[in-house]
Parts: sequence; C-alpha cells; structure tokens
Amino acid sequence: MQEIGIGLLGLGTVGSGLVRLLEKNGEFLARKTGIRLRLRRILVRDPEKPRGVSVSRKLLTTDFEEILSDPGIQIVCELMGGLEPARTYILRALKAGKYVVTANKAVLSTYGPEVFAAAEARGVGLFFEAAVGGGVPIVKALRESLSANRIRRLTAIVNGTCNYILTRMTEEGLPFSEALREAQARGFAEADPQLDVSGADSAHKLAILATLAYGGFLPAEKVYTEGIETLEPLDIQFARELGLVPKLLAIGREEDGRVEVRVHPTLVPETHVLASVREAYNGFLLEGDFVGSVLLYGLGAGGEPTASAVAADLLDAARFLQAGARPGPILFRDRPLEIKPLAEVESRYYFRFSAVDRPGVLSKISGILGAYEISIASVIQKGREEGGPVPIVMLTHEAREASVRQALSEIDRLEVVTAPTRVLRILED
Amino acid sequence: MQEIGIGLLGLGTVGSGLVRLLEKNGEFLARKTGIRLRLRRILVRDPEKPRGVSVSRKLLTTDFEEILSDPGIQIVCELMGGLEPARTYILRALKAGKYVVTANKAVLSTYGPEVFAAAEARGVGLFFEAAVGGGVPIVKALRESLSANRIRRLTAIVNGTCNYILTRMTEEGLPFSEALREAQARGFAEADPQLDVSGADSAHKLAILATLAYGGFLPAEKVYTEGIETLEPLDIQFARELGLVPKLLAIGREEDGRVEVRVHPTLVPETHVLASVREAYNGFLLEGDFVGSVLLYGLGAGGEPTASAVAADLLDAARFLQAGARPGPILFRDRPLEIKPLAEVESRYYFRFSAVDRPGVLSKISGILGAYEISIASVIQKGREEGGPVPIVMLTHEAREASVRQALSEIDRLEVVTAPTRVLRILED
Repeated sequence: MQEIGIGLLGLGTVGSGLVRLLEKNGEFLARKTGIRLRLRRILVRDPEKPRGVSVSRKLLTTDFEEILSDPGIQIVCELMGGLEPARTYILRALKAGKYVVTANKAVLSTYGPEVFAAAEARGVGLFFEAAVGGGVPIVKALRESLSANRIRRLTAIVNGTCNYILTRMTEEGLPFSEALREAQARGFAEADPQLDVSGADSAHKLAILATLAYGGFLPAEKVYTEGIETLEPLDIQFARELGLVPKLLAIGREEDGRVEVRVHPTLVPETHVLASVREAYNGFLLEGDFVGSVLLYGLGAGGEPTASAVAADLLDAARFLQAGARPGPILFRDRPLEIKPLAEVESRYYFRFSAVDRPGVLSKISGILGAYEISIASVIQKGREEGGPVPIVMLTHEAREASVRQALSEIDRLEVVTAPTRVLRILED
Repeated sequence: MQEIGIGLLGLGTVGSGLVRLLEKNGEFLARKTGIRLRLRRILVRDPEKPRGVSVSRKLLTTDFEEILSDPGIQIVCELMGGLEPARTYILRALKAGKYVVTANKAVLSTYGPEVFAAAEARGVGLFFEAAVGGGVPIVKALRESLSANRIRRLTAIVNGTCNYILTRMTEEGLPFSEALREAQARGFAEADPQLDVSGADSAHKLAILATLAYGGFLPAEKVYTEGIETLEPLDIQFARELGLVPKLLAIGREEDGRVEVRVHPTLVPETHVLASVREAYNGFLLEGDFVGSVLLYGLGAGGEPTASAVAADLLDAARFLQAGARPGPILFRDRPLEIKPLAEVESRYYFRFSAVDRPGVLSKISGILGAYEISIASVIQKGREEGGPVPIVMLTHEAREASVRQALSEIDRLEVVTAPTRVLRILED
C-alpha cells in the first residue's frame, strides 16, 4: 500500500466534499487501488470558521509555505477558485516538483499556457477534470478516451444554472425573471447570477474544452458569447410549436484549420439527444472522425459530484507519481489556433418579426431575405389582433451570420416593422 | 518521439478500422501525444484474402510466434474475437511481458480471473475499453473517472441491435420479426441474430461492467437474462399510452453487500434519459454515491467507433509502458461477489391479463394480487370486443419477483383467464 500525501488549498463546497469523500470512501479506495490518499494539510483563510465537515484542527494552516515545504506532500490540490492567489500557488507547487490537481477554470482559461508550460518544464502532472462539468468526465474524454479522434464538433450544455432556468421557462412557460428566482430559491443559481446567465461561465468552460480538443490555447475572451437574459416566453412558445426547445449551447467546431467557438441560446430539435438534458444537468456531445457521436451527461456542479472528479484526478496523479510519469502534453498544435469570425459562421435561424397587419408585408420581408440569399424553410403567421402588430415567425435554411445581420437591419428599418426582429440560432444536425 | 511497436491479432471489421485510423490520424497522434504507434505485424488466417484496407503484405503473418518473439513489439492488440485461440494468445503475450489491448468480451467474461491474474503476476497492463460499448468510454469511466465512487446502480442499453429493433417496434408499431428483418437489411443485425436478441450479448457485457463496478469477477452465466423475441406490439402500444417505452436493459445494483445482475426488456418512463437512447445507440447510466447520475452515450459497435476505443487503449498502454507502470488492479474485493437471487429482486411491473368479459373478473385478479401484497398503481381496461377476451393492463408498485410469479401462476389458472399473463418490469426511478 503506497501512501500519497495531499496538500489541499481551500475548504469551501468542493473542498468539504472531498474531505467527506475521503472519509467515507478512503478505505474502499485504498483496497481498490492500492493507493492511500492522505490529507496532510489544508490551507484555509480562517481556521476558526465553523465548517460543515469535521477536520482535525491540526490539519488546517493559513500558510501556503507549510504545504510547499512539506516533503510528505506530493500532490497539491487547489480548490480555492479565483485567479489569485490560486495561480501563484499552482505555479509554485509545479515548480517545486509537486503534481497538481485543480478545479480552477478561471486560472486555466486565463493563464493556461503559463500553467501548462510550468508543468512541462518540471516534468510533473497537471490534472483538472473538475474544472469543467463537475462529475462528468469530459476532460478525460478529450485527453484520453477520444484522443485518437479529430474532434469535428463539440456541442455542450455546460452551465446547470442556465439549463435549469431554461427548463422552467420551457416546461412551465415562466418568464426569465421568475425562473431565475425559482433557481435561486432552490439553490441552482447564485444570489448574483450574472456570471452564469450572461454566458461568461459557459465561455470559460468552452475555452478549456476547445483548448483540449484543438490543441492550441484558446482564451475565453475569444469565445463569442450571448446569455439567456433576453429570451422571451413568446419565442419559446413558438419554438415549441415548431418542435424546438431552447438551450444555452457552447459550440466548438474545427473546419479547414479554423476554429469556431460560440456560446448562445440555441433552438434544439426536441428529438435531439441534447434536448433530453434537462434541469441542472450538463451534457457534452462530442463528434469525432472515428467514434461518431458520444454524449456525456451528469451533474456539472455541486460539492459531491465535483469532489468525485477531484478524487479521480488524485488517484490518477498518484498512479503517475508512483511511476515517475505524467500524462501527455495539453497543447500540441504546431501553429496558433485561428478563429473563424462570427460573421462567417453559418447556421439555421429562427426569426420573429413584429409587423403591422397589412397586405404585402410578408412579401417585403421575404424579398429582403431573398436578396441576401437567406432561404426560408417555414413560416407561421398567427391570426391578427385588432389592428395591432402581428408576429411572423420564420425558420431559415443555413445562412451566413453576416448576411442575416445585414438583412435584419434592413428589415427592422421598414416602416411596417414595429419592433426589432427577434433572432435565435437553430442547432444544425 | 517514442515509437511503440504493435502486434495486431486479427484483421476483421475492428482490425481494419484500426489500420485505417492509424493511417489517417497516426501523424496527428504522434504530434499530439509524443507517441508513435507502429504496426509491426498482423496475424491473419489467410494472407491472400482481399481486404477492405490496404496493408503491406510484409506485415501479415499466420504465425503468432513471430509476434511473441519480436522484441520490437511491446503491445499485443487482440481483435480476433472468440474464445480460442484468443485466450491462449492473450495469456502468452502477458506472460511474455507484453502489454495487451483487447476487445474480446467473450474471453474477459469467461476467463477474466485467469487473464487478470496473468497481467498482475507479470506486472503488465491489460486494457479492454473496446470490449464493451464500442467507442463509448464506459470501461475507463468505471476504472478511472468514477473510481472514487461506490457504484450503487448501473442501468444500460448495451446492445445496439436490440435497441434498433425496439426503436422500430415502438416508433412504427412493427412486430418483432419485421423489425428484425429491417435491422438485418440495414446492417444493424447479423444473419444469425440469436446472440443479440436473446440478451446473451448484453449479459456478457453486463458481466464485465459489474466485475469492474463491484470488484469481484462476475461470470456471464450468473446474469439473469431474458431477450426481446417475445415482445408483442400490443404491449408496446399499451405501454406507450402509459408514457413508457421498452428497452432491453442491463441492470446491476449493489445493496447490503449483494449484487443484482439482470438483463431483460424493461419499460422506461419516456421522460427518463435512457428513453432518449434510440436507434443503434448504447447508453450507460451510472449512479455513484458522490457523482450522482452520469450517462455515457454513443455507438456501441462498428469498426470505426470500436477502433477509436482500441487506439485510446494503445495510447494509454504506451504511456504506462514508457513509465514501466500499469493501471490499478481490476479485482479488489476481499470476498467473492454474492448474487441476489432473482426471486428477491423488487421491481414495478406491467401486467396484461387476457380475461373473458364477465362481471367480477377484475375483482378476482386484484384479490389474488392483494393476497401476495402486490399493490396496483393503475389499471386500463379496454372496451369489449363481441364476447371475446378483453385485455386488462395493470401497473403495480414495487413488488417482489417471487410474489409476482406466484400470483400470476394462480391468476393464469383462473377459468376466466384465457391466455398466459404478459409481464414486463418497469424501471424504478
């Protein structure tokens, strides 16, 4: 039985989950793997703070140097979150020759190259399954299980908060604000939900996944990002009539050496497997040139699921450590990633026009679309309401984003159009 | 760049898929991983046979000894299938100190302990992602990603042929025989479909998954197995009216130290995530004590998806080889697995009684069920047909298999009951 010493940084939700996991399943894991993971030190800000988990006061420290200088600590497990001091601690641990397990998506999607290079330079292992997808083994799928494939497409629901809100809006017809309040009340959304609902959290996660899939560092700010705050129940209702459900998707594609990365609300056919990813679940659909489509689905957040991923990383790290080995490199591209501009991206679209109910309106709108080579797949025009504006809903075939933007700007300037056209992208099959 | 020499046994569908994968993605993999996988020898029965893949005639051999004695071959990749000579070759390769990658579910579910022990004894790695689930990384999920969890339940669609047939029966109302013919015509079923439709193939796969999940060898013959041949369209139709769809499920559970393993047609609520696993796809739902529910979904068969899994194993094996290391042990239980007898298993049930249309029939049937403590959740009785027998459909709450068998045997002896009662189990949530 080999014992591996762990220095834990942070004892919040995930850190406490890990402590509970090692307490409950530690013996079982030792028997199963031949490796005993021993928590030797836990870095906290305030050792006196009451915690939901029982740890010996002796384990707690406020001094990172104690962890760094302890030769009995072979793995540093960073679960503090945030950029600093997490980044500095990770780098110092790697440089000191310790293996690092982290759940820190902010550090990885911001300082990825620096952190990866530090691990390479010192020949130590860096593991971060828990940075994306909580308990869902999506990082390992990209780094190992599907590594023999070229990943053509990655289409994922990576934010449980947004998925919960959209599920409530779709299944109960709630407006965004009300669904958000329900999510907050049930613990699926933070008091300040901005990072989630704006799509920023999804962009961070997509940046990490695309970096793994395409082998070149992709910073989060390169991801085109729209959130879910402006989605209207009326559009969800029309979409459902057309057999479509809204999801906040993170999409990565590689084509002709260029990479397309975007996060936005997307209408998904209700028979599509991602449509069945409901509530606070995450779903990752990967399409590889040999494996075809693979979906991974599970809880993408929460102390216990995330602790499951951290513990798996610790066991992996321990096994590599024992052998003096480490996993393969993360960045493998010979040239930098080239990003395809959003204007060139093609997609199917959902439009809802608000127009006065007058003969010739439809022909004007469709004339402009035609001029921009946007071809219409179907139209719904609902009965008139006493002279008021009528919604006209159209689905298009594949069209270029730039053409769509130009066409809509012309259409929205028409006198007969009473409000800006609502636009949603539709998931291509 | 380290070069790893591979000896391939078998050049059928999966072997040819692997050759194509290495040809197409070999350079990319070398750049990505720093490992070059080189096929040094391929064992075939007939070197002159025309093949769908171009390999140099010089690589082909009919003599296993050439592979075994080649010091440049560090990994033997067994893709012949069948028990012998595959078992002997695997054992000899392990004993010769070579790492082994295999897709052979028959050998593993029959001779698991012998093969695992040979790998342990010689300190070499044994990899078998491709033995279950084709391209879906279910083996790695159990061995690594979710390894920190106790797996409470494993519920899976592991046979694409059956899933395709059931999808056609459900969505188009086809009888079994016709759906089977369609599956054969479209290449989703073998000319002799017995191994698939009888549930035997699913039982082999479940045996391997349960062995990994519970850490004790579970031979396939311990799996209670029913196939899909006797499913009737009428029952599928009733089930759909009740919001249920039929799936051939492989179910493993551990409770109080005993393991329950069974394969049988099961009615799944249509909102359940496994209901969205359609056509020839496989789906593996794992429930761990920390991770919660995780689903893996993808193509469970076919040359290319399976080659993706084999190639991932080759890369893993190569990385371990380089470090002189190997993955953790497969069997980790201190006592043998104890199997829970089917009679003690509890489930919800679907019954379809055929009874004459006469007052008091329903009360007789429900009286017998009550006497066996089987409580009824809902009943559908369809309108009468000119004096003929009427179907009475009932769903029960959780009941014990033994009680159900006894109750039905009494009911089927009633004079008013005109045909044996049809029984299906319902997936518990």
